[in-house]
Amino acid sequence: METPHIVIDAGIMANNINKMAQAAMDAGVKLRPHVKTHKMPSIALKQLQAGASGITVAKLSEAELMAKHGITDIFIAYPIVSPGKIDRLLRLSSQIKLIAGVDSMESATLLAEAASQSAQVISVRLEIDTGMRRTGVLYGEAVELAERIAAMPSLRLDGIYTYRGALFNGKPTLDLKTAGEDEGRLMVDLASRIRQRGIPIEEISVGSTPTARYVAGVTGITEIRPGTYVFQDRMQARYGVCSPEDWAACVRVTVISRPSADLAIIDGGSKTFATDIQPMVNPLQLEGFGKVLGWEDIHFERVSEEHGMLRIGPAAQTGSLRAGDILHIVPNHICSTINLHNEVLIRYENGAEQVVSVLARGLLE
Amino acid sequence: METPHIVIDAGIMANNINKMAQAAMDAGVKLRPHVKTHKMPSIALKQLQAGASGITVAKLSEAELMAKHGITDIFIAYPIVSPGKIDRLLRLSSQIKLIAGVDSMESATLLAEAASQSAQVISVRLEIDTGMRRTGVLYGEAVELAERIAAMPSLRLDGIYTYRGALFNGKPTLDLKTAGEDEGRLMVDLASRIRQRGIPIEEISVGSTPTARYVAGVTGITEIRPGTYVFQDRMQARYGVCSPEDWAACVRVTVISRPSADLAIIDGGSKTFATDIQPMVNPLQLEGFGKVLGWEDIHFERVSEEHGMLRIGPAAQTGSLRAGDILHIVPNHICSTINLHNEVLIRYENGAEQVVSVLARGLLE
Repeated sequence: METPHIVIDAGIMANNINKMAQAAMDAGVKLRPHVKTHKMPSIALKQLQAGASGITVAKLSEAELMAKHGITDIFIAYPIVSPGKIDRLLRLSSQIKLIAGVDSMESATLLAEAASQSAQVISVRLEIDTGMRRTGVLYGEAVELAERIAAMPSLRLDGIYTYRGALFNGKPTLDLKTAGEDEGRLMVDLASRIRQRGIPIEEISVGSTPTARYVAGVTGITEIRPGTYVFQDRMQARYGVCSPEDWAACVRVTVISRPSADLAIIDGGSKTFATDIQPMVNPLQLEGFGKVLGWEDIHFERVSEEHGMLRIGPAAQTGSLRAGDILHIVPNHICSTINLHNEVLIRYENGAEQVVSVLARGLLE
Repeated sequence: METPHIVIDAGIMANNINKMAQAAMDAGVKLRPHVKTHKMPSIALKQLQAGASGITVAKLSEAELMAKHGITDIFIAYPIVSPGKIDRLLRLSSQIKLIAGVDSMESATLLAEAASQSAQVISVRLEIDTGMRRTGVLYGEAVELAERIAAMPSLRLDGIYTYRGALFNGKPTLDLKTAGEDEGRLMVDLASRIRQRGIPIEEISVGSTPTARYVAGVTGITEIRPGTYVFQDRMQARYGVCSPEDWAACVRVTVISRPSADLAIIDGGSKTFATDIQPMVNPLQLEGFGKVLGWEDIHFERVSEEHGMLRIGPAAQTGSLRAGDILHIVPNHICSTINLHNEVLIRYENGAEQVVSVLARGLLE
């Protein structure tokens, strides 16, 4: 493959997959990885083989693709409210074990009415806002909503879920232990209050790569849904949940120009490296758009669409970096970076290489 | 098409295409639009039909795709330095009128040697850094480099080019007139000094949607290479080069949740809206990640990968916005946003709609 392209180290990836599976097993919780990170059915199947109980997706179109490739237990952690999509969701639900996210009376009612009309019962999970201010019913309104959803005959409420990541009291934090334990406690307390109304809550699902190990340890939690762990990235290393040895994915680029001693230009910019995790944002304070592997004092400072600008510091200027040279860069955020690529190169431990399509790339529906 | 997806208004797009073609004709310069904005051969063909003399691409793979769809005059405004790509460039150059960007002795020598070995003569243009600190030979070193390139028998130096956009003296600016005129003057002065060495410089190519009208007016400039004008976007409106009536592209999204009166969640985040033009960056000071059309006091404040968070201000709270409702949002930067989508919906003036693949999407090589 010509540059720029993503390289995945199969051995490191397998190790990441196994470590998270083991961590879930040790904590006695199920692991339902979010496949938005890799968007490749072949990797989802590896996660299942390693012990995952099912997968999580964000979008219906991702669920359909994964089901087409043989995955039979999928949680769509996202409210589906469009009539056309609800029809497709019902169809998929009749073929595999599907759980749909709901987070309001509106989304629950839309699903319930459609399910009722087609004489189906749909499994749903109620999303709780534990501080992210994203989707999810407000925490204080969750018990009442759970009760109303549980009363809908065409829905089966299987549990509650949240996504909070590295937040504490609504603020980004590096204190993942406090954040994770707080998230777990909020969810277990809530489940207990819903159960007091006579409503069975089987699953209490939480998760995120940064907080997984802490929230999984809270008694009562039944499932974690991390995604990024499969590859890890620069953001996760900054959170302290992985080390550079765990980086399974990087972007291979070519130096295309050395206009001056302090500047090198590479053949990837914002169409190659995601820009949703910007430099110097709290609490991460990541410098630049990625880490250039094997070089100190080279700083990935600026991007335009197809150019990346590396500032070459004094300690690196003695290096012989020139046009045509290859560099490997770990992006700040691998999930949104993978989504920019049509294909990736997977390198196996025996030296074999394989080009794999990012089949769910750009599936936004 | 289900949401989220891009909608393109064919009538507005045609108007944008025609206006820029007319502006180029009025200024007596050639128009060679950069197709990185739309990445669709069918739209490139419309630009050519409207009077463009050829097209500009950033990457070899884009050039190959556009050539496959019948486009025969292509400028790759990017140094190509990898041996495999240079082979492909030579092949393409034997099939169409191709001009390759060079910006250093290294890139020129690599091309010249390969061309010589295959007994070809390649047309090249020398990229000049006029202040962006990206690719491009340093301004002060350009005359000497032009002389050395012109002496290479397997290269034909057809001119010089730069990209500076809305910069003045290296700083982002809203004063496009000064920026454009300065860019033009720098390039014309340089061409004159190169010509004094007996080297013919046919083309002085500059560009960018923000500065096109000003730089095209500088005597001696022969070509402009704007890209974004085909759709325009929120950034360009902020620059003052278009008005909201010129926005030919927007993203159609669905409200999926209204957790509280001050918050609406839409089904598009950083995998749907590009994040390379961030909110509140100088000099644009754009608020949020896009403009919600038809609503005041709704602010597209936050994104995660598949969620967009709209803050609903007091003036909008009386609105009846609810889950299932459709909104149209003009992104900050349409070029990198289009690149996130596999397909777009084109709406014609007669009401017809057509789904068109973004064929060059993700072509990074």
